[in-house]
Amino acid sequence: MQRLPIGPLYYEFSRHNEPRLRIQPGETIVVESEDAFSGQIRTNDDRRDRVTKPYGNPQTGPILIEGAEPGDSLAIKIHSIEPLIGQCATRVPPLHTLAPWLGTDCPHGTHVCPIRDGKIYWSDKLAIPYQPMLGCIGTAPDTGVPTTFPAGPHGGNMDIIEVAPGNTVYLPVFVPGGYLYLGDAHAAMGDGELSAAGLEMPAVSTITVDLCKSRKIPGPRIESPTEIMSIATGCPMERASAEAFAHLILWMEADHGWDRWRAYDLLTHVARISVGYFPLGTVAAKIGKEYLPLA
Amino acid sequence: MQRLPIGPLYYEFSRHNEPRLRIQPGETIVVESEDAFSGQIRTNDDRRDRVTKPYGNPQTGPILIEGAEPGDSLAIKIHSIEPLIGQCATRVPPLHTLAPWLGTDCPHGTHVCPIRDGKIYWSDKLAIPYQPMLGCIGTAPDTGVPTTFPAGPHGGNMDIIEVAPGNTVYLPVFVPGGYLYLGDAHAAMGDGELSAAGLEMPAVSTITVDLCKSRKIPGPRIESPTEIMSIATGCPMERASAEAFAHLILWMEADHGWDRWRAYDLLTHVARISVGYFPLGTVAAKIGKEYLPLA
Amino acid sequence: MQRLPIGPLYYEFSRHNEPRLRIQPGETIVVESEDAFSGQIRTNDDRRDRVTKPYGNPQTGPILIEGAEPGDSLAIKIHSIEPLIGQCATRVPPLHTLAPWLGTDCPHGTHVCPIRDGKIYWSDKLAIPYQPMLGCIGTAPDTGVPTTFPAGPHGGNMDIIEVAPGNTVYLPVFVPGGYLYLGDAHAAMGDGELSAAGLEMPAVSTITVDLCKSRKIPGPRIESPTEIMSIATGCPMERASAEAFAHLILWMEADHGWDRWRAYDLLTHVARISVGYFPLGTVAAKIGKEYLPLA
Amino acid sequence: MQRLPIGPLYYEFSRHNEPRLRIQPGETIVVESEDAFSGQIRTNDDRRDRVTKPYGNPQTGPILIEGAEPGDSLAIKIHSIEPLIGQCATRVPPLHTLAPWLGTDCPHGTHVCPIRDGKIYWSDKLAIPYQPMLGCIGTAPDTGVPTTFPAGPHGGNMDIIEVAPGNTVYLPVFVPGGYLYLGDAHAAMGDGELSAAGLEMPAVSTITVDLCKSRKIPGPRIESPTEIMSIATGCPMERASAEAFAHLILWMEADHGWDRWRAYDLLTHVARISVGYFPLGTVAAKIGKEYLPLA
Repeated sequence: MQRLPIGPLYYEFSRHNEPRLRIQPGETIVVESEDAFSGQIRTNDDRRDRVTKPYGNPQTGPILIEGAEPGDSLAIKIHSIEPLIGQCATRVPPLHTLAPWLGTDCPHGTHVCPIRDGKIYWSDKLAIPYQPMLGCIGTAPDTGVPTTFPAGPHGGNMDIIEVAPGNTVYLPVFVPGGYLYLGDAHAAMGDGELSAAGLEMPAVSTITVDLCKSRKIPGPRIESPTEIMSIATGCPMERASAEAFAHLILWMEADHGWDRWRAYDLLTHVARISVGYFPLGTVAAKIGKEYLPLA
Repeated sequence: MQRLPIGPLYYEFSRHNEPRLRIQPGETIVVESEDAFSGQIRTNDDRRDRVTKPYGNPQTGPILIEGAEPGDSLAIKIHSIEPLIGQCATRVPPLHTLAPWLGTDCPHGTHVCPIRDGKIYWSDKLAIPYQPMLGCIGTAPDTGVPTTFPAGPHGGNMDIIEVAPGNTVYLPVFVPGGYLYLGDAHAAMGDGELSAAGLEMPAVSTITVDLCKSRKIPGPRIESPTEIMSIATGCPMERASAEAFAHLILWMEADHGWDRWRAYDLLTHVARISVGYFPLGTVAAKIGKEYLPLA
Repeated sequence: MQRLPIGPLYYEFSRHNEPRLRIQPGETIVVESEDAFSGQIRTNDDRRDRVTKPYGNPQTGPILIEGAEPGDSLAIKIHSIEPLIGQCATRVPPLHTLAPWLGTDCPHGTHVCPIRDGKIYWSDKLAIPYQPMLGCIGTAPDTGVPTTFPAGPHGGNMDIIEVAPGNTVYLPVFVPGGYLYLGDAHAAMGDGELSAAGLEMPAVSTITVDLCKSRKIPGPRIESPTEIMSIATGCPMERASAEAFAHLILWMEADHGWDRWRAYDLLTHVARISVGYFPLGTVAAKIGKEYLPLA
Repeated sequence: MQRLPIGPLYYEFSRHNEPRLRIQPGETIVVESEDAFSGQIRTNDDRRDRVTKPYGNPQTGPILIEGAEPGDSLAIKIHSIEPLIGQCATRVPPLHTLAPWLGTDCPHGTHVCPIRDGKIYWSDKLAIPYQPMLGCIGTAPDTGVPTTFPAGPHGGNMDIIEVAPGNTVYLPVFVPGGYLYLGDAHAAMGDGELSAAGLEMPAVSTITVDLCKSRKIPGPRIESPTEIMSIATGCPMERASAEAFAHLILWMEADHGWDRWRAYDLLTHVARISVGYFPLGTVAAKIGKEYLPLA
């Protein structure tokens, strides 16, 4: 099984970087990724230094998938996401969005949390269940190079909790080889990722990357054992929600025989929504698989 | 036990209407409500007639709570929400937000769904679990009279699925007596209430209304057996999310001994979000009760 | 000429208040209005006291227009807006929207500015041209009672600089008699009304109110000597802009013989936009009158 | 005087392209640019073909400014923008934002408009004054490569009418040499660029590019003979407006001796706003130069 260690820290989903790994469709690989702080916070005394590392969310990649062509899509099955050094770190950045209610005198809040036995030790008293996910996963667009801050049709910094072990992420291929990147693993994450600083961890992920030939998709999709979901992003979140629902409806129409207006009606009554990092307006519109055969 | 039947259909959370019921704090009552279509759709052949009923979401009320004064709050425990006539109805209105993807040739989609044995018969093949909730519940502001379309600090058309049996809704009191209204029951509802036309049903709700003296709250709150949540509303949803989180943090600080910045950090990792009717930007920020004693 | 002095300070555009003046269509009247601070700031030492006056923008009215019926509209020609006491006042409230860039340590900034010879003496060195306008003007809706904070189809707190002498404001009539209110005069106002605290002045306005029978309009319109404009409001401003443009296009179609798609094309090249209080998202879409006959 | 003809059509503000022209600071040059339709519409019968040209707004560049380093800024004085072939073209794309009011049956509306004697002949009856501007002008970021659709700190597709002859545009330098691009000239443009398809013309622009060493600016600025203005972009426009104002205030503080809170107060009363392509939320916050010395 090929293993891709942490290498150059890339802050772009770029087609201009040299592929660091070449894999065959269907291959299972192990990918290490640095944490969102570029590894600057390993102890409680460490601080984020934006002079040496101005950007966040460094990615590991690009991974070239042999035979991938524009118009195809990738199916990335996530088997596991494990901590690389047994810990994660977070900090409490001032959030001006909350200033009208909370003020801005937010104290220094960097702290490192050990991870063991399926728990994240956030404090002496409080442990959070270990529920890892990847904040970022994406392919390289053919025009424009997104940084690791936004999300979009290429995936990117989606911060959707369903990018998690057991689930499959689908991403469009825009350039030959696909150029897959991933990183920004969180040991757990709340909906909305309020402060933007999750439980950031260097991680090792085991994934299988399949190639769906000539299967063009308009943006990221996820399949869990119980749900399918479409992801859209952009401000305002109202518009992103509409787009995510529209893509889910068209997916139900194309693959499951649903009339689009019947699907639209049904989703009104049974859909679920998952919210990513809320200031970016990333939204997953979801439906339970039990409804899909009942068109 | 006092029972308030459907009476005049009010489309405002108004302090100007005469109270239809006067209750003591702690009293359990039964309240009937008409459906969001003002009862215009009882068969598949019925249509929504906006000439005779231009507005939606008629409310039952106002209910005067003896002793309620501005600065108090109400705690409304919902025991049950049952269908009044064994069915609900929905329709498929064109949604221009989705037009860029789906077009606008949305066919007539009015249909009535029988409810029995805990299931809503949406079609011959497909039944949806009966999970009722109240789309609207609110008190009368002291300045301004909201219609039954928006949501706000008074509650109103929140369309949050957690306004459901087993949960307690807290609402501010703005005028003497509180002037509580409720309606717009749904037999089930998806996150976001995509088409705005839920599984609308005339309903009978059993509630206990407690009075929390001198307990001023900034907007609606809900307590379920497992979570507490703060609700905020407004476009863009990004701003409403920030407000809902801020209110939740201040609640954790005031009632559970949390430092606000620690609560802010924690919520980043464990919060959940519930989304109401998405074009209105109503959001509930939630935290599991297991975390509250661990400040 | 009838004159309506400052009376009860109303903070709602309400159909429930008793008319203070009854006029005939076409009548010219003089209306006094208190300033947006409810008269609390008359010297540099005065402060805004929200305990006694929790709300802002008190209105003078309602004015009943004889014969006005739902479906009609009012045409309010503004002849003049003069300072009532020779001065205006402003203050500098902290604006959390700007906090990420400016911080929040905004000092006390209440100051009174004399008005004379067509100038507002903002400081010893700096005088601003006196260009008065009414921040608020509106009619009473038939359902719901807006406070004096929002703007909407009824007009309300539009804060559009074109509500000024020489121009005519058109407003829909929703209830018999129309119930016109006005207030919140500014001695001058910048686009967007950045801090929300304008050069607030008690004022005396001379207006002629005409009645346009059976002329239903979807929201406020303004006609200046050189332009016509449609006003819409709501967050995000992108949506309000679209609505304002759509209403302007339909107006060009209905009254000036324009094909809607030709009007849409033309506006792309020649329209102008005026922005009201920006957090409310109020926008006027405008076109020069020279283009109207050229359909 | 060096002249840069239309060459490869670039749809990115990319640091990865080879400079096509190298100039000294202070040099005056002539730059030709293709129209936003990539030259596909030269007659009324031509149509936009997205298969061969999927993207819009091709740019001419990059222009390397000798000695430009990150942290510097460019001052681009625009002397003239002239039509290259004596005409411009436009079309009427369906705009789903307007669909709720106008429907979507927008007919084919491609037409070519001759330009002569300072007028654009939009139809037989109607001529629009020739008031040219550049829809796009920008430098290459050091991280991320924006396409020619968005606007941002690098400039880009701002669609601000003040990017016009007689004015000076300031842009940050992010990479050595600056890598300046420009294009998307409009023969005239309405505020908001309603349909997104302006009066697009191949153009020849004469500009002088000065280098402001060690003068770091947070985003685009413009100086006209009578005003200075800061530009920000992003949805919702409410947030972009706040950012544009904040940058203008800090500019007044840094260069003109204004206390930031006094500037904030003043702008409330005298600022003007210019709106770019409205769905992108690009906004220029402006102040008249007569106020600047009066701090």
